[in-house]
This record gives sequence, structure tokens and C-alpha cells, in this order.
Amino acid sequence: MNYPNGIIKQTSHNKITYDSNLSHKNRGMTLEYELNQSNEYYREIDKAYIYKKPTPIKIVKVDYPSRDKAVIKEAYFTVPSTTDYNGLYNGKYIDFEAKETQSKTSFTLANIHPHQIEHLKNIDKHSGIAFIIVRFTSLNETYLLTIQKLLNHLSNNDKKSISIDFFRKEGYLLKDGYRPRIDYLKIVDLLVGGL
Amino acid sequence: MNYPNGIIKQTSHNKITYDSNLSHKNRGMTLEYELNQSNEYYREIDKAYIYKKPTPIKIVKVDYPSRDKAVIKEAYFTVPSTTDYNGLYNGKYIDFEAKETQSKTSFTLANIHPHQIEHLKNIDKHSGIAFIIVRFTSLNETYLLTIQKLLNHLSNNDKKSISIDFFRKEGYLLKDGYRPRIDYLKIVDLLVGGL
Repeated sequence: MNYPNGIIKQTSHNKITYDSNLSHKNRGMTLEYELNQSNEYYREIDKAYIYKKPTPIKIVKVDYPSRDKAVIKEAYFTVPSTTDYNGLYNGKYIDFEAKETQSKTSFTLANIHPHQIEHLKNIDKHSGIAFIIVRFTSLNETYLLTIQKLLNHLSNNDKKSISIDFFRKEGYLLKDGYRPRIDYLKIVDLLVGGL
Repeated sequence: MNYPNGIIKQTSHNKITYDSNLSHKNRGMTLEYELNQSNEYYREIDKAYIYKKPTPIKIVKVDYPSRDKAVIKEAYFTVPSTTDYNGLYNGKYIDFEAKETQSKTSFTLANIHPHQIEHLKNIDKHSGIAFIIVRFTSLNETYLLTIQKLLNHLSNNDKKSISIDFFRKEGYLLKDGYRPRIDYLKIVDLLVGGL
């Protein structure tokens, strides 16, 4: 079947946008994928129970083509109330947000919702372990930055972005491993030990 | 517009099924609604940060009618990996599942996935606070039952259901309140104190 030009373009645009935002099938290993793998490994060895939360959506329309099958036919992405990852490690509540950036120089704070920062601040205040993990994909460098360091940055510096230098100085470099791929709990051990 | 009978029936069936499973707009206060309200209140008074996780779905098709707008056009409900609620209270990791039953005599365990019970068991083992909340809607009785009690039941009794008597004897009755509507953290205080 032949469609007019406009429709083909639209479909192709949709596909690209969908792939880059939601699906990782056709890409290299993303931070999200590696964190999910690492969390799975932590569960396998009975070390920690940390999960990525499902993507929050607002469901508008559901069809039931058969009695047991529900198909969501209309839904929308909604702003997450909290962060993407949380769970339990060694009796401690763990909570973090993970983001990738293509930039080689800085991480744009618009990537994290203000209420997510507020959430991490509350977690820290109530004796949870709260941080962000940021990957600079072009540099192949991944950092864990505690919420305290992030808040320090927000109160003293540019509120729009965090430079790679700040991450290098104040964050913890997370090196690639095999299993787990990203051993961020090693840093959590350091943080808890240092409290 | 007039549709043939079959189609009208189908639509009306869909609507009812959708309402009863997903939306609470046209119903009385459900356990989920009341727990969400209670958690919101706990956050307001800076007491605890406990959230319901988004419903897990598998997204198959997304349309972009305009640049900034994404509409999910095909998605399916998936089996949750964990429980519905988790968060932080007083430095403790809290994790629970909440269910309603119409039965006046027992709660059918098929309502909770085996991997959710396994998850709660792991949480308990790693010093988190793990429980289920079950409401017998016809009796207007809501109970908190710790995972330990649930596991005891599973190893000694009928594995298919838990009688209301067991909840009355081994669980904690959660009375209706105003704010919070369900003060389940009062019971968590008891549990932590009693450990």
C-alpha cells in the first residue's frame, strides 16, 4: 500500500522518537539497561532488593477483545511523583534517579524534575540513601552524586547545569564491571561507612 | 448514532470492567484510594515517604500527533515484579501489598502472586518492614498482617486462603480515621518496637 509522503514521514519520525525515548532494543547498552541488570544480579546473590519503578501513565481507554485480555488503547505518559529506582540494601532504604547525557561538558538539571530533587532531599533527611547517577555517554563516564552534593551545588552555583568537573571532583566514578555491570552499592557502602 | 446491539453491549461491558478494575471515580472509597490519601498525608506532615508504584505495563505502540505529545495506542498490563507500595519511614524500608475482598469468610491467596510473597520474605530477611493489608469490604474490616504471620500460615495451614479468623487473631485491625484515613504506621511503630 502506498501512502502520501506526509504519512510516511510521520511514521518514520514516530519510530525514531519512540526508539530513542522508550525502547533500547536497537541501541547499545544504556544506563537503564545496565542498572536493571545490576539490580537483577544483586537480587540473585541476595544482596539487595532494588527495582526500577514502572513508567507512570494515565490510562484513558481499555478494550477487552476477549474476557481475559485487556488492551490499553489510549494512555498518556505522566510526570513521575518520585525517582525511578528504590529499594532495600542492608536494612537501608535506597533511592535514586539515573540519567544519561550526550554532553561532554555538563549535565542539564532540567533533566531532573524539581519535585524529584525535593523527594531525594526528604529521603536523605529521613535517613535513606539518596543520590543521582549520571552517565556522560560521549565520555563513557558514569558518576554517582549524593543528594547532599547536588544540593550544595544548587545553593552555590549555576542552577541550570552541573559541569563534568563537579562530577569528577564531588561524585564517585562508577567503573564498568562484569557482574554487576555497575557496582554502585560499593559506593553506598562507602557513604554509609562515612556517615 | 445507532450501533447494532452487539456493539453496544460490548462497549457497555468494557466500561463496567474498566471502571471496576482501574478507575475509582464512580465508586466508594477503595482501599487503594484511602492508602494513597494516607500516604499523601504522611508526606504532608513529613512523617514518611511511601508511594504506590505505577501500574506496570508493556508499551507496544506510541503515536506522536504533535512534537511534544505522545499517545500510547497499544499497551498491555504486565505482572508486577514487586508489591504495590514501598517507601521510607523513620529510617526503615517499608514494603507492602494491599488487597480487597468481597468475601465475608476468607481471603483467597491467589490474589497475591507467589513472587510477591517471595519479595516480602526477602524484604523481611534484609531488615525491611514487610506486610500485607487486606480489606474485607463486606465486613468493613481492614487488617495488617506481617509477612512472618503470612508465612507461618502458609507453612501450617490451607495454602489457598486465609480465614477472617486468622486475620482477627494474628493481624492488626486498621480502624478508619480522618487524617490519615488509615493510620497503618501506628502498627509499624508497634512492630518495630516489638522486634
